[in-house]
Amino acid sequence: MAFGDSPATNSHHKASSIESFDRLAQIYRTAAAIIVQKGFDATSMNEIASALDLTKAGLYHYIRGKEDLLFSIMQFAMDIVDEKVLTPARKIQDPEERLRFTLARHAGMTKYVKEITILAEEVAALSDEHRDLILERKRHYFEFVRATLVELNEQGKLRDLDPTIAALNIFGMVLGIARWYRPDGKLGPEKVAEQTSRLLLGGLLKSTE
Amino acid sequence: MAFGDSPATNSHHKASSIESFDRLAQIYRTAAAIIVQKGFDATSMNEIASALDLTKAGLYHYIRGKEDLLFSIMQFAMDIVDEKVLTPARKIQDPEERLRFTLARHAGMTKYVKEITILAEEVAALSDEHRDLILERKRHYFEFVRATLVELNEQGKLRDLDPTIAALNIFGMVLGIARWYRPDGKLGPEKVAEQTSRLLLGGLLKSTE
Repeated sequence: MAFGDSPATNSHHKASSIESFDRLAQIYRTAAAIIVQKGFDATSMNEIASALDLTKAGLYHYIRGKEDLLFSIMQFAMDIVDEKVLTPARKIQDPEERLRFTLARHAGMTKYVKEITILAEEVAALSDEHRDLILERKRHYFEFVRATLVELNEQGKLRDLDPTIAALNIFGMVLGIARWYRPDGKLGPEKVAEQTSRLLLGGLLKSTE
Repeated sequence: MAFGDSPATNSHHKASSIESFDRLAQIYRTAAAIIVQKGFDATSMNEIASALDLTKAGLYHYIRGKEDLLFSIMQFAMDIVDEKVLTPARKIQDPEERLRFTLARHAGMTKYVKEITILAEEVAALSDEHRDLILERKRHYFEFVRATLVELNEQGKLRDLDPTIAALNIFGMVLGIARWYRPDGKLGPEKVAEQTSRLLLGGLLKSTE
């Protein structure tokens, strides 16, 4: 997984090898699941450590503290978004094609759904410096989606919709997946992604497949 | 405001007069705003009391405790949904008309957006008994929306969408409004409601206005 997309992360946690990256990813995933379920404030480092079969000291080998862990999870989630969605989507010239790709990819990130939820729900718990950094990265992504809708509007392909409200609503629905999606449920990730982007594309575009 | 829709609430907080109902509504709104911003666990009764210019004792005159306050906010939000959306919508025979009404009304509840967010985000903080009661009321509303989509599908009016996933995504987008809507912002509540239901209807229905 290329962290090159995110200088902030490179300077933050150093994935010196595949193993340590995988270990960090596992720590973030486990912590994210607990934080999403209980809320950040109600989650203790002890719970996270024991969920990972680590001692508290063992956990501190990987992370500096609870706020640092939260920030790292958000950076990790934004890195995934950059790598899986934003970077490839930016290469797509046609705005309709770009929108279809972006929605399908974003709605398809159910594997990282918990990490992404935390991006939406726990920003208030960050330090001011970390909050500014995360909000800047989120704004970046939002503006990319909004700009694509503006382009579609200029091409006469967007329904009679305000691009800002539409972009906000897109994120609302896609981030909402984390609230109801169950990895062990009978709705598979491909079906969720396909159905969610179909619903959004049908609502956004004048002519739909 | 008719609490008749909700026996659970009648037995829970007793709005003996308009004033005390308004006072309760004000307490719930103020507490909800703080809880949405800080999270339930990070919110103290002292903060809520001082935000209401009440002493802690004064606040306890209206509510029994922090969990009781959270439960009351959720009951209040469900009462509003019952009164403004569910009860009138049930009277509408035609499923397309019923869907349009339900989406417009629900997306138009920006005044209660904080209370409704709490329904989505803080259920884990409830006692088991209270959680079961709230989840039952939410399930009730979800099933109503889902059943309307199933009816539309039987009439051939729904796009090629899974009614369950579509209903989950509808709630995702509508509940998401609370995350970005700013009462003091330049996007008015009517516009937000109109734009959100237009996006959803366009995505759900084969033939759209």
